[in-house]
Amino acid sequence: MSKKHRRLRVLVAPSGFKEGLGVREVADAIARGVRNALPRAKITRMPMIDGGEGFVQTMVDLLGGKLHPLTVTGPVGQPVDAHIGLLSGRRKRTAVIEMAAAAGLRLVPKDMRDPTRTTSYGVGEMIRAALDLGAERIILGCGDSGINDAGAGMAQALGVHLLDRYGQPIAGNGAALRSLDRIDATDRDARLEKVSIDVAVNPYNMLLGKNGVARIFGPQKGATPDQVAILEQGLQTFVRVVRRDLNVDVEPLKGGGASGGLGAGLHAFAHAKLHPRFDLILRHIKLDRRLSKTDLVMTAEGGIDGQTRHGKVPAEIARRAKRHKLPVLALAGTVGAGVETTREIGIDAVFSILNRPCTLEDAIRETEALLTEAAEQAVRLMLATRSVLRS
Amino acid sequence: MSKKHRRLRVLVAPSGFKEGLGVREVADAIARGVRNALPRAKITRMPMIDGGEGFVQTMVDLLGGKLHPLTVTGPVGQPVDAHIGLLSGRRKRTAVIEMAAAAGLRLVPKDMRDPTRTTSYGVGEMIRAALDLGAERIILGCGDSGINDAGAGMAQALGVHLLDRYGQPIAGNGAALRSLDRIDATDRDARLEKVSIDVAVNPYNMLLGKNGVARIFGPQKGATPDQVAILEQGLQTFVRVVRRDLNVDVEPLKGGGASGGLGAGLHAFAHAKLHPRFDLILRHIKLDRRLSKTDLVMTAEGGIDGQTRHGKVPAEIARRAKRHKLPVLALAGTVGAGVETTREIGIDAVFSILNRPCTLEDAIRETEALLTEAAEQAVRLMLATRSVLRS
Repeated sequence: MSKKHRRLRVLVAPSGFKEGLGVREVADAIARGVRNALPRAKITRMPMIDGGEGFVQTMVDLLGGKLHPLTVTGPVGQPVDAHIGLLSGRRKRTAVIEMAAAAGLRLVPKDMRDPTRTTSYGVGEMIRAALDLGAERIILGCGDSGINDAGAGMAQALGVHLLDRYGQPIAGNGAALRSLDRIDATDRDARLEKVSIDVAVNPYNMLLGKNGVARIFGPQKGATPDQVAILEQGLQTFVRVVRRDLNVDVEPLKGGGASGGLGAGLHAFAHAKLHPRFDLILRHIKLDRRLSKTDLVMTAEGGIDGQTRHGKVPAEIARRAKRHKLPVLALAGTVGAGVETTREIGIDAVFSILNRPCTLEDAIRETEALLTEAAEQAVRLMLATRSVLRS
Repeated sequence: MSKKHRRLRVLVAPSGFKEGLGVREVADAIARGVRNALPRAKITRMPMIDGGEGFVQTMVDLLGGKLHPLTVTGPVGQPVDAHIGLLSGRRKRTAVIEMAAAAGLRLVPKDMRDPTRTTSYGVGEMIRAALDLGAERIILGCGDSGINDAGAGMAQALGVHLLDRYGQPIAGNGAALRSLDRIDATDRDARLEKVSIDVAVNPYNMLLGKNGVARIFGPQKGATPDQVAILEQGLQTFVRVVRRDLNVDVEPLKGGGASGGLGAGLHAFAHAKLHPRFDLILRHIKLDRRLSKTDLVMTAEGGIDGQTRHGKVPAEIARRAKRHKLPVLALAGTVGAGVETTREIGIDAVFSILNRPCTLEDAIRETEALLTEAAEQAVRLMLATRSVLRS
């Protein structure tokens, strides 16, 4: 039963801490703590991403490749500095795109947060840039969006005509979708016929209705109740016209609501395939292969609670780690109600990193040091008790 | 190397959480957490006491015996409900007394916190009551005092005359000690000749000078800088007169400063022996014997930091646990600067029990639940990782 003496192999696979610390810094901080307690540990850092901000950088870091900077149209029409990634050493030339780089909520000035007016036009420009670079395959991450236009702007950037009942082009935003009357795809970028686009989405994001993207995410993007109703009407119109003119039913698509309906738009206008984000990402970064060479998994997220098991990073990591029968430790800033449910999906223990009564601001400022300290103490506890518990 | 399969034996030996939770509740809360994770664990709860509040109750709980209620003179002269303990099944009839029950800071109303005026008279009354109950031996705990009279009041309650230069009795308080001119012990309770009194003190508490009790603890008891000077003068006078009239030098006594000089007074007036508190307490509760039947030690204190190793409960427990090569886990509300020094004295890992950014008040209110949760998670981590680390 006893394994041979060897170095402990630790996989550090955290999420970023919202408002606090980027995912790479989180992974580094935890790795430092492990090393403080166990200098000979073999630590693999795998910063976990969900398709949102940081997706391209992290994919390039993990898989090799380089970033291409470009300037595109931002969500409120301003030029923004964006980037796409080109992976190296692939049989098919593969580009990686994150929609947030062109249409993220962070790019919408606080006093302009009105998702009836924001556009995904820059996402279309990034796709075009990927095609210009010769991409045969595009991996596109959704998340952290500030838009709700069902990819209307993106479609226009790719040459699709979205027309009102007078035959005039509509604006590429969520409010204008209400006057969409006809889609004319004859001038669509022809290169789209040959590229395959895989989109990482949260499959729980639906397009329409009570649990649709306008109702669930509209308010977070700044929509008033009236604006939510406008967005919902626009999306309904979009579904109807797409069904008639493109012969595609996007309403039931899992993840069709991702990034304000961009998921549905990518499927309708660019024949993209939508994938549950972690299935797509973890397959690409070969998580399973790494787990097979791991003894202990450490994950983390800003908050861990009863919601965690519904597709959050620690849950996705833990589920897969448990297939390899690996112990999983999770660290969090806030450990909330329902945390005991995380055990069912494979998280063995959860610790808050906080070390005293403090404000959220203090906690955010010190996240890095707190993560290191908590990781170190956890490993020290393991080391101290290893000979105690034998089954 | 592998031990036989058997139930994990956990010794839970925490301190109380100041302002938060009594030591028994702390021990219970941790034990519950251990049991949640490991229902078959064999848990021994040993609430750790330092001679202050709760000393008698806990000694009686741990050693068997009963409490005797009585009313004595409180620190500001008011009657207070106090209690002494009588241990059962001892060769010598043994009473246990905590000075805080008669002269604790908690018994001094906030608007009367002036240690030049408070008295240890009630402590003398408790000793008398123990003698009335036939005690041949007294174990007396110091700590949490609101007095600084070098046991003057206590001495008077036991029949010692403390006189000024006009031959008049002085008041039994710290200010009056300045006018002490002569000690007449002829009427002292004769039973004191036959009883042995062992006092649990913090040996770092000195009587006089820069690190003396007036300077270090006077302000905590409410003394102004002027009052600290008065107390110091009184203690100097006390030392001088005791040396001359009783032929005892209390100045260099380790722990002579305990409880506002009560340690020195007990030695001078009642031939009491002062002992480092944890040596005395842990010997009585037979900690070593328990440690020899333990696999894991869990301790706790409200705050754990660089000061912990200087005689705090977790340090005393850890030092002794390490002689048995046992792993020691410590839980705290606040983990402060210098915590890494606790490793040198045998604490393997320290975790804060906090689970989110919160105020001190929130943390105090939830201490019990937080302790349970933290203990449970720590044991879960141990269980999950037990097969990972083999040396």
